[in-house]
Amino acid sequence: MAKFHRDTLNLVPFVSVDNMMKLILHIGVEETMAGIAEAIEEDFVRWELFDKTPRVASHSAEGVIELMPTSDGEVYGFKYVNGHPKNTKDGMQTVTAFGLLADVANGYPVLLSEMTILTALRTAAMSAVAAKYLAPKNAKTMAIIGNGAQCEFQALAFRKICGIENVRLYDTDPKATEKAMFNLQNSGLNLTSCSTGEDCVAGADIITTCTADKQYATILTDNMVGSGLHINAIGGDCPGKTELHKDILYRSEIFTEFTPQTRIEGEIQQLPEDYEVTELWEVMSGKKDGRKSDGQITLFDSVGFAVEDFSALRYIYQAIQGTQFYEDLDMLADPDDPRDLYGMVQRAAKQNMTAAE
Amino acid sequence: MAKFHRDTLNLVPFVSVDNMMKLILHIGVEETMAGIAEAIEEDFVRWELFDKTPRVASHSAEGVIELMPTSDGEVYGFKYVNGHPKNTKDGMQTVTAFGLLADVANGYPVLLSEMTILTALRTAAMSAVAAKYLAPKNAKTMAIIGNGAQCEFQALAFRKICGIENVRLYDTDPKATEKAMFNLQNSGLNLTSCSTGEDCVAGADIITTCTADKQYATILTDNMVGSGLHINAIGGDCPGKTELHKDILYRSEIFTEFTPQTRIEGEIQQLPEDYEVTELWEVMSGKKDGRKSDGQITLFDSVGFAVEDFSALRYIYQAIQGTQFYEDLDMLADPDDPRDLYGMVQRAAKQNMTAAE
Repeated sequence: MAKFHRDTLNLVPFVSVDNMMKLILHIGVEETMAGIAEAIEEDFVRWELFDKTPRVASHSAEGVIELMPTSDGEVYGFKYVNGHPKNTKDGMQTVTAFGLLADVANGYPVLLSEMTILTALRTAAMSAVAAKYLAPKNAKTMAIIGNGAQCEFQALAFRKICGIENVRLYDTDPKATEKAMFNLQNSGLNLTSCSTGEDCVAGADIITTCTADKQYATILTDNMVGSGLHINAIGGDCPGKTELHKDILYRSEIFTEFTPQTRIEGEIQQLPEDYEVTELWEVMSGKKDGRKSDGQITLFDSVGFAVEDFSALRYIYQAIQGTQFYEDLDMLADPDDPRDLYGMVQRAAKQNMTAAE
Repeated sequence: MAKFHRDTLNLVPFVSVDNMMKLILHIGVEETMAGIAEAIEEDFVRWELFDKTPRVASHSAEGVIELMPTSDGEVYGFKYVNGHPKNTKDGMQTVTAFGLLADVANGYPVLLSEMTILTALRTAAMSAVAAKYLAPKNAKTMAIIGNGAQCEFQALAFRKICGIENVRLYDTDPKATEKAMFNLQNSGLNLTSCSTGEDCVAGADIITTCTADKQYATILTDNMVGSGLHINAIGGDCPGKTELHKDILYRSEIFTEFTPQTRIEGEIQQLPEDYEVTELWEVMSGKKDGRKSDGQITLFDSVGFAVEDFSALRYIYQAIQGTQFYEDLDMLADPDDPRDLYGMVQRAAKQNMTAAE
């Protein structure tokens, strides 16, 4: 990443929700995810450079608030994200998020951005990148079980990045499937609405599970998963929340983002602590194999990691340059003399009086 | 703290640097610090309720970027703060900061604020609160060694909260002292510019050390500190940075904010790890004594802790209600249907087209 350029030290570019929507519509939703996917691949190849602090969680009876920091030595980033499963019944989002990038050389923030939408994009981009390395060759059909907020982004990312042509949709709530069918009607994908999970996975090369708000659910049972498939397991992403029957895990080669975190939050919390898994960065950097044979079942046990948010913010930082899709926030005090903070406040008083005269 | 009231779910009140200056000038700098001091006392009395996570630091050759989170079970807060000693030579601040409060019940942020100025105010407010419990009775004279960005705030907080009338100023750079003399000329304090540290402490009841950018400096030597004084040691605040000669520490009763952090960052990093110190919250809540005798030397080994930032943000959250000193940031995505994030993006596209027609 090139060194940050700053015209004015005190202003931090801010991408609001409105500007994020405008930006990704300007670029195109699929193209944005392709750009984020590229940034993720660049960062996963240089994985060992990153400062991989575990997320800092503050738990309460209602949910969790987390800070997810990371740094590559030149750029620092963190995401604030909450998870409150019961919010939906009050018309609020289960998850909201925002993030920040800063220049490691001087500690000054260089980007503040909404990340509720951006996290949805990076999660789908990450899934598609993993599938590029793990899915069966010429995969054309994906089943998506769970048709909530993440569903459409998954479908479009896999179309753009992995060449998926057919998407089969299933949700226990038929209205969620209707919503996804409607939203994807002009996407160029062949869509099939399914009435059971078993129906949904019929003929699929890739199975994506992205259900929410279930404790130790079993979205996929062992008999639903034939040989040669790739499973993209999104929904099992916190302690006590999993989607796959344990037997499927034992039949699969399992791939993770950052294993210490996945053991706590992912599907593999069902397995012994020393069960062998492969980290995706090892596959992307050529250190280990991805898919080894046509008959193998591959499983991406997705939980989301700070480096992916870093990649997404880095992409957005580049994407807004020269556009009107951000505003400048007066977030950093910048006195003429750094030792004279009090004088700056006093001079502000004088300016206010002059302005009032 | 009363439950947060939100008219619009997606908007987060933001206090910019400009608005922070206007707000504290509107309230008054001293009155603002008195308000923050009151919030600190309220929070220190209920200290045991707080989730006291250690700060999360990302170190580099040039400096450090830290996240300082805490929560009282109802409200969550964190501060982003950097420390880059070499920034000053490039005309940048050594320290910049911003902070956030969120509602623990739903995880939604309720306040984003600049904290470069606010941290200066809370640091001085914290010092004055500590002195209220520790300084000799009827203390009227304070020596301030180090006349940088923190100096004036310390002088004014001690005037307002502890009744200090005389301030003696000394800095190795006479220009810093001139700046402070100029800034405080109409403060009502009797000011004396001193040419040596020894001269500065003559006749003082309280000695404040707030120098910067020195490794293991000795601002105060043992012979400079007579019996019965209170020492307010601000500048020793990171590993390898201290201001007081070790012998002074052995003659003093030492008071800390959060001892595990002070042992790493404060003056007491010079002492054995099990050296007995008293936490200020214990004094404020009546569990332990503050000053025990007239002849005792008391020492507040200040490093700054997350709970103080929480108190300061909590004060600002209340202070901006009903004022124009904040703006609303469109920071949180708020779709009509929480499961329909993609649909929200698509509808934004249609609105944009309609607007363009």
